[in-house]
Order: sequence, then structure tokens, then C-alpha cells
Amino acid sequence: MKELDVGAFWRLLKPEVVAWAVAEHEGQRSICPLGWTMRTSASPPMVAISVAPSRFTHGLIEGAGAFVLAYPGRELVQATQYCGSHSGRDVDKFAASRVTALAGRQVAAPVIAECVANLECRVVDRFTTGDHSVFVGEVVAAWAREEPGQLLCLVDDSAGYETVLVDERFRFGVVRG
Amino acid sequence: MKELDVGAFWRLLKPEVVAWAVAEHEGQRSICPLGWTMRTSASPPMVAISVAPSRFTHGLIEGAGAFVLAYPGRELVQATQYCGSHSGRDVDKFAASRVTALAGRQVAAPVIAECVANLECRVVDRFTTGDHSVFVGEVVAAWAREEPGQLLCLVDDSAGYETVLVDERFRFGVVRG
Repeated sequence: MKELDVGAFWRLLKPEVVAWAVAEHEGQRSICPLGWTMRTSASPPMVAISVAPSRFTHGLIEGAGAFVLAYPGRELVQATQYCGSHSGRDVDKFAASRVTALAGRQVAAPVIAECVANLECRVVDRFTTGDHSVFVGEVVAAWAREEPGQLLCLVDDSAGYETVLVDERFRFGVVRG
Repeated sequence: MKELDVGAFWRLLKPEVVAWAVAEHEGQRSICPLGWTMRTSASPPMVAISVAPSRFTHGLIEGAGAFVLAYPGRELVQATQYCGSHSGRDVDKFAASRVTALAGRQVAAPVIAECVANLECRVVDRFTTGDHSVFVGEVVAAWAREEPGQLLCLVDDSAGYETVLVDERFRFGVVRG
């Protein structure tokens, strides 16, 4: 074993599934791509997501007490990159990304029609963890696109992935189907 | 979009990296395989893990205020299955799994020599989320095995994975290298 710088360590932790936190409050809505999500309860079903307080979506989730966790496929890699590098304070990410917001069944936040899968979540708790907040969401509805697809991930250069887009910070890809 | 049963939904969320929570307290130690982990702060670096309170390892983490998050590769798939289906109250998982516990540099919990990577974590917070606890760990040291390897994951039958072991509950595999 060799000791690593923590920053270098995270590069080993691939694949990491990408999800979008989607929220809407008082007529404003936004999309915030995340890598830091996990399930956190089986019954009732819950997920936890880590969101930086500086994000516009953070305030919308707090205000609405709800979010949708939407899982993009390869088709949405550019939308993911765009939403991750712009603020919902300045732009309408739904229009810019040309995604279709469908009304959620249980929560105010919209479901994204083009995503592979969507979870509607009601916020049941919120914690501060270092430089992020954890929102704990009880899953109140779940959706999948009619045609299935591989989930967009952060990947490395292993042969099992098809790289979809590389920028200065991230390598996006999908597991070969 | 079609509405799904939440139980069916989780099957879409592959891949899921497997990690072991490793803890030691008052002469007792154990290993608890987890799928529900995430990063939760960049600075200071933190991870969050979801552990069921019934787990023996849960009490050890609480007692010690520390854990190691160890990432097994394909070589440890049987150890992962064994540790996930036995309790540390009844068996010595280290002996049964034939893994090498090395002293951590910063925390009481041991680092696993055969794992691809290990994080030493000091517990800074603990929350209850439904039927699990979240332990928030500040990362105080990080380790990698000399020879790199793919991380063991829960996978589906996509071509990009090599399936390593299938049992009644799980399909374990690695991304093709």
C-alpha cells in the first residue's frame, strides 16, 4: 500500500453515476448535476444528495422541500456539462438544454422526460457536512423512460466504457451496452 | 415515461461501487460491505456512509468514532459475499476472509492490504435516515494498493462488465479493463 494525496484518491473511484437534482420554487426552477448521491434507507425508501450551498438549486430545494433526482443518459451529456457550468440565477437551463419538464405526480419539482429515470423526493431532513449540505429525500414516486439506456457516469479510460465527452475537469462515459 | 415500483427502480441504478466499512473498538473488529456511500465535502474531504443499526460494525463505528472505507477488487468478491451474509458477532471476518489488517496511520480501524484503495475516516457526525444511520467521516488518510485494479461493483448484464459472481441477491462484477 502506498499513501496517496486525497485529491488523487478520488480519481480511483470510478465509475460514478451522474444525477441531476431538479427543483422548482415560486416560479423559478433549475437543474444541478451531481455525482455525490446515495441510497440511505430501504423502508421507507430514501436517497441522500450532497449539494453545495452556493448552488441556485440548493435554495430551491430548501424552499420547496422537494426535489427530483433525474438520471441522464449519454444523449444528455452536453446538457449535463452546460447545467454544471452555468447558474440557474442567470439562465433558464431547461430552455438552454432543450429538455422537457413534466409535472411530477407527488412533488412540485418537474420530472425530465428525456432522462433514463427519475425519482420524486420529499425532503425529510437536511444536514451540513463540511462545505456541502445533505438533503435526505423520501422517494414518493419513481419513473423510467420507455426505452432503457445506460446511465451517464464519470469514468476512466477502461475498455468497458465508451467515452462520450471529455473536458478539462471530467471524462463522461457510459458502460458498453 | 412509465411509473415504476421503487423496488424495481433501484435495479436500473447500476453500476454501484462496493465498499467495506471496517471498524475496531475495544478489541473487536469487523467488516461490513456497503453499496450506499458518497462523497459529501470537498474541503475538508468527507464521505458519508449508510449503515443499518443492526449491523455489528455500526456499534464499532459508534464506539471508536472512526472507520476505514476499503474498496475491494474482484479478488475479494467471495470475502465480500461472506462478510455481507455473516455477523461479526459470530465470526472473525478477517480470519475467514484471509485478509491482512494493517494498522491505520490516523485512526484505530485497520486498513485492508488486499483492497484496491482505503480511506481512513474520523466520524464527525451521525444522522438517522429512515432505517439506516449516516456516518459522516472526515478523510484523514488515503491509501492505494501498489498494483491498481478495477473496483468491485454491483452490475447488470451489460457487455462492458465482466461478471465475477452471481447469487440470489446480487450480481457482482467489474468494468472491463
